[in-house]
Amino acid sequence: MEKDFKGLADQYKTALLDDVLPFWERHAIDWEQGGYFTCLDRAGKVYDTDKFIWLQNRQVWLFSMLCNQFEKRENWLNIAANGANFLAKHGRDADGNWYFALDRAGNPLVQPYNIFSDCFAAMAFSKYALASGEDWAKDVALQAYNNVLRRKDNPKGHYNKTYPGTRPLKSLAVPMILANLSLEMEWLLPSDQLEDILSATVQEVMGAFLDRDRGLMYENVAPDGSHVDCFEGRLINPGHGIEAMWFIMDIANRHNDTATIHQAVDVVLNILNFAWDAEYGGLYYFMDAEGHPPHQLEWDQKLWWVHLESLVALAMGYRLTGREACWEWYQKLHDYAWSHFADPEYGEWFGYLDRRGEVLLNLKGGKWKGCFHVPRALYLCWQQFEALEQKSC
Amino acid sequence: MEKDFKGLADQYKTALLDDVLPFWERHAIDWEQGGYFTCLDRAGKVYDTDKFIWLQNRQVWLFSMLCNQFEKRENWLNIAANGANFLAKHGRDADGNWYFALDRAGNPLVQPYNIFSDCFAAMAFSKYALASGEDWAKDVALQAYNNVLRRKDNPKGHYNKTYPGTRPLKSLAVPMILANLSLEMEWLLPSDQLEDILSATVQEVMGAFLDRDRGLMYENVAPDGSHVDCFEGRLINPGHGIEAMWFIMDIANRHNDTATIHQAVDVVLNILNFAWDAEYGGLYYFMDAEGHPPHQLEWDQKLWWVHLESLVALAMGYRLTGREACWEWYQKLHDYAWSHFADPEYGEWFGYLDRRGEVLLNLKGGKWKGCFHVPRALYLCWQQFEALEQKSC
Repeated sequence: MEKDFKGLADQYKTALLDDVLPFWERHAIDWEQGGYFTCLDRAGKVYDTDKFIWLQNRQVWLFSMLCNQFEKRENWLNIAANGANFLAKHGRDADGNWYFALDRAGNPLVQPYNIFSDCFAAMAFSKYALASGEDWAKDVALQAYNNVLRRKDNPKGHYNKTYPGTRPLKSLAVPMILANLSLEMEWLLPSDQLEDILSATVQEVMGAFLDRDRGLMYENVAPDGSHVDCFEGRLINPGHGIEAMWFIMDIANRHNDTATIHQAVDVVLNILNFAWDAEYGGLYYFMDAEGHPPHQLEWDQKLWWVHLESLVALAMGYRLTGREACWEWYQKLHDYAWSHFADPEYGEWFGYLDRRGEVLLNLKGGKWKGCFHVPRALYLCWQQFEALEQKSC
Repeated sequence: MEKDFKGLADQYKTALLDDVLPFWERHAIDWEQGGYFTCLDRAGKVYDTDKFIWLQNRQVWLFSMLCNQFEKRENWLNIAANGANFLAKHGRDADGNWYFALDRAGNPLVQPYNIFSDCFAAMAFSKYALASGEDWAKDVALQAYNNVLRRKDNPKGHYNKTYPGTRPLKSLAVPMILANLSLEMEWLLPSDQLEDILSATVQEVMGAFLDRDRGLMYENVAPDGSHVDCFEGRLINPGHGIEAMWFIMDIANRHNDTATIHQAVDVVLNILNFAWDAEYGGLYYFMDAEGHPPHQLEWDQKLWWVHLESLVALAMGYRLTGREACWEWYQKLHDYAWSHFADPEYGEWFGYLDRRGEVLLNLKGGKWKGCFHVPRALYLCWQQFEALEQKSC
């Protein structure tokens, strides 16, 4: 592959603006009852109307973000508003905690059993407030943000099944989501609060969760950062580790911290080496650090978001460091992702392939795949290559 | 395949007594700290020492059951005692509810978040009390049984994430486990209580969960038995439906209820037709009744217990009805199961194959596969074919 940054920027921009966004605009908006449909078959036909809060909020975020960062299109703002109004009305319980799922009309189906719904709500309403200028949306964002801060030390509350004390573990997801979220809330937070959170996150992630010997990111470690020999303690989630690394690069870049950027790139390359399926191509979904059988039966499947986050991490890593290893891996991932996940026939990307790269679920959206990872990664890759193109001019 | 019932009975008996039981006897017993190891690799080497209560109790049950129903071998009773003593000491919280998982030493890891741990405890300690003559084991069994009765209308207690009222569903698992459990407790229960539960179960399962038009067993239905168009409401779990049908045949046979036996056989055949993978063979793990993508990513995998329960259902269906369709399906399942799951090289059976029938997890036991479905099914198939052989003499 030639280093045709302009061509790549165009490829991502076209895919985003002419394929992926129109797919969701056409099929996913519930203009009648509010919010979005996310269970869409290959062609975009709705096969289930339940509304999953993560995905609802992520779609509000996506369209608002594009209004803020790319172009304030009226139909995008209307789409964001269609979700935001529905969610503000139906998304929370009496204490302001965000449910996990609603039915089509907005009646609650699944209780607020973790803080990720609140996270995505804070991100969504922060960006929507910025895009729409609606003051009430700011309040919704800040309330959700405070829920996360309040609940972060016990994210599942009374739904937590872990017996306290026997085997304490901390999870990579918590600092990662906090950093990401705080960046999304930047314009609403005092700047010293944000910088404190970002610095603490870099230290926690690169200190406690990164195994320095192996260069791998662990999902769960003991409170002192040591490894625990159990299923959760041995778990490697390659896509999550790689996604975490581009967040870290992004933060380190704000701080002009070149050493941390290079360290994050090293980790991305290590994870790719560890998780690449030499036989069939693609990255595994879950792995056991010691090579034991993972208990996740879907461990060898190839998931869209894992590959898209890797494209972002490699494009960003290459932009920030110019390291050839990033470019080499980028090409490998690009070839795999564009030839396996993208669906030129019906639009958008498949989400779930089996180990061999064949379509496992013939869908474009479901309970966990919505309008988020594909357009976000297309947007971010477009930005990386546009910057690379400008640098090289 | 010839109808060589003696040959089949011998095949199952030999596999059980000379292969499968010795595998667990050799590798799975933690004589040092009590209980069993269930995370065993292909060759039987322990790769994780956590103790999962379902599997611990099921292994106590299995060895006790063999002592009661086949032969009271001293080493089997010792193995059962090694689990029962460990579990009686460590398995329950202060209120007598059964944890989900312990560490090797017996410290609790996962809270008692559902009633199935209690179910398997009741089954295990009932059979162990019978095998050992220990009165205290009877008390443990009855306490666990009463936990199940007390908690059956809200099996997950405060861990239940479903918002009450919006979309009430009842689950096939609850009547099935209650019937199975009550049969296992037979010698400890007043006989009218048992018969009431069994009759109610047959009525509930064949009335509410069986779709009469399609002849399929649904996992979740509305309280009035109608279908609900959502992921859970469309869920078909072929292995579970088929396992349920041999329980029903067993109960109907006690009541000399030939019509219900035939109806259960019809359902088994319908499920097999629906769930058989025409391209690669084997039965799917999860399906959507309407053909939509299921949200379970492991939906197309081939699991050991699904196929073993089908062998039991078909052998029993054939013994009770003599219907040729049972025999034809039996042969198809026999060929698939014995050639894909059994591992003559290292002993025991693989648990998890991919859609194509290749080994997905190179193990003999883990968090969910222990010493239960393989030996139970081998024992039950042996019994069916021995009875068929005797009938034909």
